[in-house]
Amino acid sequence: MINVNQLKTEINDYLLKKQYSASVQQLNNPINYTIAQKSKRIRPLLCLMVASLNNNVYANALPAAASIEYFHNFTLLHDDIMDNADLRRNKPTAFKQFGLNSAILSGDFMLINAYQYLEELPADVQLKCIRILNYAAAKVCEGQQLDINFETTTAVSETDYLKMIAYKTAALIAASLKMGAIVASLNEEQADHLYQFGWQLGIAFQLLDDVLDVYGDVEKFGKKLAGDIIQNKKTYLLIKALELSTPADKAELLTWFNKTETNEAEKIEAVTHLYNKINIEALTRQKAKDYTNNAFEHLNMIADSLTGINQLSNFANQLLNRLT
Amino acid sequence: MINVNQLKTEINDYLLKKQYSASVQQLNNPINYTIAQKSKRIRPLLCLMVASLNNNVYANALPAAASIEYFHNFTLLHDDIMDNADLRRNKPTAFKQFGLNSAILSGDFMLINAYQYLEELPADVQLKCIRILNYAAAKVCEGQQLDINFETTTAVSETDYLKMIAYKTAALIAASLKMGAIVASLNEEQADHLYQFGWQLGIAFQLLDDVLDVYGDVEKFGKKLAGDIIQNKKTYLLIKALELSTPADKAELLTWFNKTETNEAEKIEAVTHLYNKINIEALTRQKAKDYTNNAFEHLNMIADSLTGINQLSNFANQLLNRLT
Repeated sequence: MINVNQLKTEINDYLLKKQYSASVQQLNNPINYTIAQKSKRIRPLLCLMVASLNNNVYANALPAAASIEYFHNFTLLHDDIMDNADLRRNKPTAFKQFGLNSAILSGDFMLINAYQYLEELPADVQLKCIRILNYAAAKVCEGQQLDINFETTTAVSETDYLKMIAYKTAALIAASLKMGAIVASLNEEQADHLYQFGWQLGIAFQLLDDVLDVYGDVEKFGKKLAGDIIQNKKTYLLIKALELSTPADKAELLTWFNKTETNEAEKIEAVTHLYNKINIEALTRQKAKDYTNNAFEHLNMIADSLTGINQLSNFANQLLNRLT
Repeated sequence: MINVNQLKTEINDYLLKKQYSASVQQLNNPINYTIAQKSKRIRPLLCLMVASLNNNVYANALPAAASIEYFHNFTLLHDDIMDNADLRRNKPTAFKQFGLNSAILSGDFMLINAYQYLEELPADVQLKCIRILNYAAAKVCEGQQLDINFETTTAVSETDYLKMIAYKTAALIAASLKMGAIVASLNEEQADHLYQFGWQLGIAFQLLDDVLDVYGDVEKFGKKLAGDIIQNKKTYLLIKALELSTPADKAELLTWFNKTETNEAEKIEAVTHLYNKINIEALTRQKAKDYTNNAFEHLNMIADSLTGINQLSNFANQLLNRLT
C-alpha cells in the first residue's frame, strides 16, 4: 500500500537531488523559487501512482514525474507574465519577483529541463515518453492561445471553452498518467484508458477551479477571491450565465464585464448576485460531476486487470473533494 | 557534388511542407512571419552538409535541420523581447509586430516544435539527437543569461565574454553539425571533431558579428549600424577597448557607455574614434582568425576519412568571407 505523503516526499526529494542547475546562478533563482513553493504535486503523484500499479517499481517513473512538474511550472512562469499576475500560491509571481526577462528565460530553461529529465528514464521507454510530452506540450500552448483569444472575444461558446480547458489543463494531467503507464509497461488499452481518465478528470478540475474562484474559501484557494470577475476573465460561469440569463440580466452582466475601472467589491457582489439567480454554482458543479463520472468509467474498464487501482481512484476522489 | 542553393531550397521546402500548425491560428502567425523571413539558414545547411559526407543521403537529416532552425528562431523571438529590439532582418521583430504575449507563447511553441521535428528522424538516431538538442538548448539559455548579466556589470572579462558567446551562439552551431554526423552514422571521433569545428567556428562568427556592428555595411548587415554602441552593449570590442585603452580614453569610453540620453551620431563617432586608436577592428578580426584556424584544424584531422569535406570547408569559408 502506497502512502501519498511518502510519495510526495520522494518527488520533492528527487526534485532537490536531481536538478539541472545552470552554471549561471540567476537562471536558477526563479526556478528554485517556483519549485520550492508549496504545491500539491498532483501531476507527479498521478504519474507515480500509475507507475506503481500491478506492483511495479514506481521509482523508475520519478524522472517522468519530475519532467511533468517542471513542464507545469514552466507554464506557470510564462502564463503569469501573459496574465500580468501579481500572486501565485499567496506569494509574488516569479515575474513580479525577478522581472520579465528572468521569468521568460528561466521558464524556457525549465521547459528544456523537462525534456532533460526524460533522459533519466529507462532507455526503452524514453522515446514514448518524449512523444507524450511533445503532444501535451503543444496542446497546452494551443489552450493558452485560446485563453488569450477569449480575452478579446465577446461570445465564447461552451464548446470552445471546454476545448480550451481540455488543452490547457487536461492534456498534461492525461500525459502524467500515460507516462506512468508506459514506465510500468501497462498494455496499450490500459494506458489509453488511464489517459482518458486523466483527460476527463482534468476538465472536471478546471470547472471546479472556476467555481472556487467565486465560491471558494480564500485561505484554502490561495488566490484572491473572485479574481476572475475582477479580471473580466471568461470562465465557465460567465459563459453559461450569458447563455442562460434573462436579456436584462445578460445586459447587466456584459456591462460589468466591460468595465475596467470600478469598485471591486461592488462588482463582485453584483456579478455573484446575477450568477446566483441562475444557480450557476450547482450547474457548474453538475457539469464537473458529469466529467468525473466519465473519468471513472474509464478507470472501471481496466480495474479488474490492475492491482492497486483503488488507491488511484481514492486519490482522485480526495482531490475532487478538496475542490468541493 | 551538392549545390548549396539547392540544399537551401530543400530546407525551405521542408519547413513549408512539414509544419506543426496549431489549431489556433494566432499561435502560427508569429511563427510563419519569422520562418518566412530571409535567412541564411546557416545551421540547417551545416547539418545537411555533414549528413551528406561519405555520400550519405542527406535528406534523412532534414528533420534535424528543421529542428535546429526552429530552435534558433525560438531564441530570436524570446531574445528580441529581452532586448526590447525593434528590428530583426530589417523588419519589425515578432514582439513588436504581434505583441509580448504572442512572442512568448509562439516562441514556446517553436521550442516544442523543435523537439517534435526530431520524431521524424530515423528511429535509431532520435534519442542521440534529442540529447544533443537538450544539451545545446540548456547552454543557449545560460549564454543568454550571461549576456543579460553583462548589461549591469561594469567589468566583464574577456574569458566571461568568450564563454557567453560560446554558449549563446557556438553551442547550437556545434549541435547542428553533430546531429548531421549522427544521422550519417559517422564514428564518434568524426562527430566530435565536427562538433569542435562548429564550436570554434561559432565563436569566430560572433566575434566578426561584433566587428560588423560597428564596421559593417548597413544594407548587407540588416541591422541599424552601431546598434551595440547605442544600446551600451558589452561586446568584444568594448571589453578589449576597456582593457587596452589609456586611462584617459578608458574614462571617456565609460562616460559614453554610461549615457542613455545622447546624440546617437555623436556617440557613435566618439566611440569609434576611441576604438580606432587601439585598432580594435584588426585585433578582433585576428581573434576571430585564431578561432577559425582552430576550427579548421579539427576538420583537417578527419578530412582523409570523409568524402566531400571540401564542400563543408568551402561553405564555412564563404560564410567567414561574407563577414569580412
